[in-house]
Amino acid sequence: MGIATLGHVELRCTDVEASRDHFHDVLGMEESLREDGRIYMRAWGDWDTFTLALVPAGESAVGHVAFQVEEPADLDRYADRIERAGHEVEWLDPGADPGQGEAIRFTEPGGHRIELYHEMERADVPPEKRSDLKNQPQVYVDRGVGVRRIDHVNLKVPDVDASTEWFREVLEFELREQLVLDGDRAAAWLSVSPLVHEVAFVDADESALNHLAYYLKAERELYRAVDVLKDNGVEILEGPGHHGISQAMFLYHDEPSGNEIEVFAGGYLIFDPNWEPVTWTEEDLPEAVAWWGETRPFSGADDDEADELMERE
Amino acid sequence: MGIATLGHVELRCTDVEASRDHFHDVLGMEESLREDGRIYMRAWGDWDTFTLALVPAGESAVGHVAFQVEEPADLDRYADRIERAGHEVEWLDPGADPGQGEAIRFTEPGGHRIELYHEMERADVPPEKRSDLKNQPQVYVDRGVGVRRIDHVNLKVPDVDASTEWFREVLEFELREQLVLDGDRAAAWLSVSPLVHEVAFVDADESALNHLAYYLKAERELYRAVDVLKDNGVEILEGPGHHGISQAMFLYHDEPSGNEIEVFAGGYLIFDPNWEPVTWTEEDLPEAVAWWGETRPFSGADDDEADELMERE
Amino acid sequence: MGIATLGHVELRCTDVEASRDHFHDVLGMEESLREDGRIYMRAWGDWDTFTLALVPAGESAVGHVAFQVEEPADLDRYADRIERAGHEVEWLDPGADPGQGEAIRFTEPGGHRIELYHEMERADVPPEKRSDLKNQPQVYVDRGVGVRRIDHVNLKVPDVDASTEWFREVLEFELREQLVLDGDRAAAWLSVSPLVHEVAFVDADESALNHLAYYLKAERELYRAVDVLKDNGVEILEGPGHHGISQAMFLYHDEPSGNEIEVFAGGYLIFDPNWEPVTWTEEDLPEAVAWWGETRPFSGADDDEADELMERE
Amino acid sequence: MGIATLGHVELRCTDVEASRDHFHDVLGMEESLREDGRIYMRAWGDWDTFTLALVPAGESAVGHVAFQVEEPADLDRYADRIERAGHEVEWLDPGADPGQGEAIRFTEPGGHRIELYHEMERADVPPEKRSDLKNQPQVYVDRGVGVRRIDHVNLKVPDVDASTEWFREVLEFELREQLVLDGDRAAAWLSVSPLVHEVAFVDADESALNHLAYYLKAERELYRAVDVLKDNGVEILEGPGHHGISQAMFLYHDEPSGNEIEVFAGGYLIFDPNWEPVTWTEEDLPEAVAWWGETRPFSGADDDEADELMERE
Repeated sequence: MGIATLGHVELRCTDVEASRDHFHDVLGMEESLREDGRIYMRAWGDWDTFTLALVPAGESAVGHVAFQVEEPADLDRYADRIERAGHEVEWLDPGADPGQGEAIRFTEPGGHRIELYHEMERADVPPEKRSDLKNQPQVYVDRGVGVRRIDHVNLKVPDVDASTEWFREVLEFELREQLVLDGDRAAAWLSVSPLVHEVAFVDADESALNHLAYYLKAERELYRAVDVLKDNGVEILEGPGHHGISQAMFLYHDEPSGNEIEVFAGGYLIFDPNWEPVTWTEEDLPEAVAWWGETRPFSGADDDEADELMERE
Repeated sequence: MGIATLGHVELRCTDVEASRDHFHDVLGMEESLREDGRIYMRAWGDWDTFTLALVPAGESAVGHVAFQVEEPADLDRYADRIERAGHEVEWLDPGADPGQGEAIRFTEPGGHRIELYHEMERADVPPEKRSDLKNQPQVYVDRGVGVRRIDHVNLKVPDVDASTEWFREVLEFELREQLVLDGDRAAAWLSVSPLVHEVAFVDADESALNHLAYYLKAERELYRAVDVLKDNGVEILEGPGHHGISQAMFLYHDEPSGNEIEVFAGGYLIFDPNWEPVTWTEEDLPEAVAWWGETRPFSGADDDEADELMERE
Repeated sequence: MGIATLGHVELRCTDVEASRDHFHDVLGMEESLREDGRIYMRAWGDWDTFTLALVPAGESAVGHVAFQVEEPADLDRYADRIERAGHEVEWLDPGADPGQGEAIRFTEPGGHRIELYHEMERADVPPEKRSDLKNQPQVYVDRGVGVRRIDHVNLKVPDVDASTEWFREVLEFELREQLVLDGDRAAAWLSVSPLVHEVAFVDADESALNHLAYYLKAERELYRAVDVLKDNGVEILEGPGHHGISQAMFLYHDEPSGNEIEVFAGGYLIFDPNWEPVTWTEEDLPEAVAWWGETRPFSGADDDEADELMERE
Repeated sequence: MGIATLGHVELRCTDVEASRDHFHDVLGMEESLREDGRIYMRAWGDWDTFTLALVPAGESAVGHVAFQVEEPADLDRYADRIERAGHEVEWLDPGADPGQGEAIRFTEPGGHRIELYHEMERADVPPEKRSDLKNQPQVYVDRGVGVRRIDHVNLKVPDVDASTEWFREVLEFELREQLVLDGDRAAAWLSVSPLVHEVAFVDADESALNHLAYYLKAERELYRAVDVLKDNGVEILEGPGHHGISQAMFLYHDEPSGNEIEVFAGGYLIFDPNWEPVTWTEEDLPEAVAWWGETRPFSGADDDEADELMERE
């Protein structure tokens, strides 16, 4: 009962073919199918038909973010909670996205389109790609970075508090970590599983994608990933490095349409049912952002302040 | 609502001081406290007061296995379910183990003593061991192997079906993977979280500990662990290797009292709410047991059969 | 003055196209050129025109092993030493192999064909494969295993002493490590550089290739390599594991024509000018062969003896 | 014939005990012996009596840098070459440093004190620290970072050309890589072995230690090292990262007396006898300094210029 996991993310792409080639050739993802100009993709460790939808658009952006719920009845339950919270709910027929059952779609307070569904068909993996590991959807992809599975989405919102509290109260997410600068919640990491986050909100002037993250098979693959990206002429925005928050290893770049992608590994898991959110403040920066490694100014602060905060003494 | 996680395991030790020194010096665990001849320990990444209890005994064995439940009310709920299943429930006062609230204890069909509790105090970490990583209970331990956190317990039982179905039906565990040899369930891996297992059952003549596993910070630490163990004169029973089942990296040895310990890393997580148990059979051996790496004959089969099954063609 | 390095190895292949595809697709090597039915290949970190020559043949075998000498004058010097040692020397014109200058060829006491040369053209790397790392011949290959550079060749010989002493006395190799069983030298590892070996000899009924080894960028790539090999249906003969001798990480398989290949990483370097050969005996087995990891019986002993020696107590 | 390897480095320390504790407890080195207030240390993979000498001094600095020559006769040969180059040679009796035979000492053009010796006793490793790996001086050290062996020294000099050419001509080092900014050689990396450097020179106002580097067992240990250093309250100056020049992984910090230490791993080896020095220029920065990872401005340039050069576009 409740939300089980992040299911997929739709990215709007100014050059959907260039984006597809990047996700396929450089990140090592698989193309599942094409439909109405959209390209559906997944990583080798993703069981679902797709975890990424690339949609042609005039400008790059996150389209919608979809979470899978535990039980069919959760759809009705959440539709009710969302409407009672004053947000409109749209019901989608099965097949609105390939392999997907009935779904609901709505807008969270920050303006992002969110989707919930329960049914999702497993990817149709051709026999020659099946693995002897029966608990793995297909063989490991040795092409490019070879990302393993979708991990999380990080969203810019104008009011971190509003989005965070709405996800906690209405969607029953747990707040795992937060960054509080000058008394304001500048960023928040929330999850429905032992992962530290399936979704994060970070303070910004307007709603936008901060980044979409795919997880690797092992931390070691991150150091291989940076070689692959650089050899392919991809500019590294930040990393490799080790976040304090989430304790995960990071590596950021933009895919060709301009959506930012994080290659992610490591981290820690939360099993404690009595977990209290971990709060990081000014004095914890820059360790909160980067326990080690190259960083950019933290976006959840104005520029001068950010530069100052990120100076290690 | 339900069981949240594996909390701790009690090991009965013929030489409790030698065992403690091994867990402390060689595996890099911390001694939390001593009480009535018992020694309570935890790994650097364990938040709880303890995850391992060493108890003096005439022969080595698993004492009890304790799981933490999501909510206080779960204790009553499970007490009721267990009694209705015909098993006696003993209520333990708070403090029966240090830091622990009220608990119930009972015997599962295989004869193992199981405990459920909700409240557990966090470890009292001295200031000089606190980490700048506020989401980590203390600094990383650079002594010995430096295991990170408790992971799972693997129990020998005379009837894998009986224990497995009881854990599913009464305790609401999910069956994640199973090994079926000649039509009989020879082993089963069950969990309440995205981990493949917090508990596994494997066929044996009588109930006993198969092994207790601690997880590492990263897969890379496994290759360091084998050096540390060998340099300390510890015999490696199996590994390093890569299980097919669970996809995790393994390394087995006996602690000085003779209880078998697995050092564990990697693996995969299950987020799919519609997960169907993965079934491995004779024809999947030995990949099921070891995708790669040194193995012993699989214990869930008689010896000659096991030797034969484990031959890679 | 002297031999500088292992340059290349010629493998005789029963199916030269299948072998080429394996080295290209699965091991991630580059095809440099084809000439007279021969296929010349190199790894991404090899500067030379080629380090591997695949030659069509009725049965798989090592053709010749070529070492590069420090100075042109070394060719005359070694020709003289070899002839004085009673072995015939054949002079090869420049271009006998592509990119290669004048060379000499001769047979060592074990029957293997050895070649020495000084000049070798650098690989002609197309502009799109050039790396921003100016000290690297080309970009890292993200296809398949992605081996980095040729490392060593291990040769079966009927008289380890004879081959070893001849390489020391005539070719000025240093003996780095040796395995002595029942008083007989069962295997020897020799080098002209800080590497533990560019060539090893192991006792066998007749002269043959034991294996040819390519080195990886980092030890971490070995664990990726085993996945790539297995997913490609390649049988793992041994490994991943950690040799005692050479301290390197190993992983063995047969290429399609049946020549055995080692994927190699780690190890130690010898800088001490007063190095004394390290001698391992019966009592050091099996650690000498495998500090950890899956092993086959050591070939430098008869079968029953070998099985017994390799039993870890 | 010639110089074989970097042997040891003497560091002048303002707080020799604090420095010793850092090298012992945090970096995991062993104390070999004390003599006349000096403390001699080595890493677990160093065969020699010592590779680091800590000497009490009023200010931190490099004392002398010692290289081991291939043969006893090399001492006379180099003494002659050095004197003919117009530099004074001082002969030291055996035992001037513990375990060391006869030696010569002189000053290179940049003002650094250099020593050459041939004989060096092996470290006296107590039986309980001996390893079953007979090719390893002792067991792996699981305390702290656990550095493996001395690697190189990087020296600030007022005239990189002068020091570089003198090392090439008089001491027969090979120039492996160089950084040329505005037509001036700003830094140079030289070696006598397949390592890219045992010594580097970098442009500075005055002669000083830039850093002393110790090598790890494997690249993976670098990511563990940064945790160990940070948990011990050591400020990270730069890294973890991946140099372009040398292709090695880096991590820099100051030991308590203020001498800068690099923890080093990875890299590439040069076996080509016809190697041409690799030249990096303005347009290759910052990749030359850091293929990836956090960097400081390059010291071989004035500050403003350096900042500008290091901006990645």
